[in-house]
Amino acid sequence: MLRTAVAGTLGAAGLTAAGAGSPARAAERTSAGGPAEERLSVAVLLYDGFTALDAIGPYEVLCRVPGVRVTMVARQAGPIRTDTGELEIVAERSLCDVARADVLLVPGGGERGTTAMMKDREVHAWIRRIHRHTVWTTSVCTGSLILGSAGLLRGLPATTYWASRPYLKELGAVYTPGRFVETGKIITAAGVSAGIDMGLRLAARLSDEKVAQAMQLAVEYDPDPPYDTGSPEKADAELEQLALKLLADSAR
Amino acid sequence: MLRTAVAGTLGAAGLTAAGAGSPARAAERTSAGGPAEERLSVAVLLYDGFTALDAIGPYEVLCRVPGVRVTMVARQAGPIRTDTGELEIVAERSLCDVARADVLLVPGGGERGTTAMMKDREVHAWIRRIHRHTVWTTSVCTGSLILGSAGLLRGLPATTYWASRPYLKELGAVYTPGRFVETGKIITAAGVSAGIDMGLRLAARLSDEKVAQAMQLAVEYDPDPPYDTGSPEKADAELEQLALKLLADSAR
Repeated sequence: MLRTAVAGTLGAAGLTAAGAGSPARAAERTSAGGPAEERLSVAVLLYDGFTALDAIGPYEVLCRVPGVRVTMVARQAGPIRTDTGELEIVAERSLCDVARADVLLVPGGGERGTTAMMKDREVHAWIRRIHRHTVWTTSVCTGSLILGSAGLLRGLPATTYWASRPYLKELGAVYTPGRFVETGKIITAAGVSAGIDMGLRLAARLSDEKVAQAMQLAVEYDPDPPYDTGSPEKADAELEQLALKLLADSAR
Repeated sequence: MLRTAVAGTLGAAGLTAAGAGSPARAAERTSAGGPAEERLSVAVLLYDGFTALDAIGPYEVLCRVPGVRVTMVARQAGPIRTDTGELEIVAERSLCDVARADVLLVPGGGERGTTAMMKDREVHAWIRRIHRHTVWTTSVCTGSLILGSAGLLRGLPATTYWASRPYLKELGAVYTPGRFVETGKIITAAGVSAGIDMGLRLAARLSDEKVAQAMQLAVEYDPDPPYDTGSPEKADAELEQLALKLLADSAR
């Protein structure tokens, strides 16, 4: 029943191999996890220096939504190093093998990883190509700077990591406060953990509110942090400086 | 300054190779990320069928704490499949290569992964061996059932995933409500995303409250989910059933 509702709402486009996107070849479309008819594909773009939770937060609330298949993709398939250099997450597919996705999600990264992606014209071309046919194009944290560098945010309201807000203007976007900001088919989330909140909204958009609410329960997301310093509006300048120092010192 | 405070408070034990734990061989201790003197080691136990966010939530708030090095470990080093089968995270080291850690963290998993670990006597022996010398032994979600199966929770207050609470009693533990429950040097967290909240407390214990608060800001953890259904106390029976169905249907 849920699967039927999803397919009925959003169509049957799976994560398709490069060259398989033309109508003439639609019958050949393959999805990584099952018959294309049952799958909504979410492609998460990994790159050297990405931030793990930016990708894993949304993954965890989307991967169990009926009909959804989340796939990690990167320039080259294989283990991709995070921003601390202490962890690797495996990209299942290479960019050149992915010509379409129903949802694109671009996580943020450390300074090195983000700036490299902001300059990478090949990746920008891939992002624009995928964006053309997405149902939703999304980012977490500094991932919005990458979407912006690809030219997707000109004149649009968007958010990003708290310390990176000024960069949005340089990319032609309009910084807009919010845990996540939805405009047309683009959703940008604030820093790192905000991807979980955005993921729940996206779960509702890809299915329905009941499923999103059940996914919140499934991951027991009833947050109760021991402190209340999670945004610059709630922290003082000293904490901001310390946070930036911890980020800089842990960067690899 | 921060690094000094950490080393002064908690000592200098790094993640040590098997056989290097005896005092006679202390000088040979190696840590994966730098001189043992500067490192507090956090070993995260990965296994086939673990839940990604259980591991990545705490990783993300601990990996930048000064002096802390988080290492993913598993029976065999290499890519380890999560509970949905859609994602692999790389374990950097094998259990047999890890004889000590300052912090042990056991994530939860799907039914298949958790029950396999609850029966795995070799893993239990490894957990007990590591636990003997930890500063903190911790779990997220059904990871507490694995700690309990290793005999670590007898007579102790603990928490676990909401749907798994009855199992704690069978393992001799006393289910205690809470986002995380601290008893002696053991901290058990509730389901999946609760590992982020526990991670912040642990960051404070391994360093100080300022650092933990700065880490909350660093990951912009100012939660604002679009719904409020993150615990069974806030959801109805229909949502509970749907959550369990989504979990079962996505299990691999």
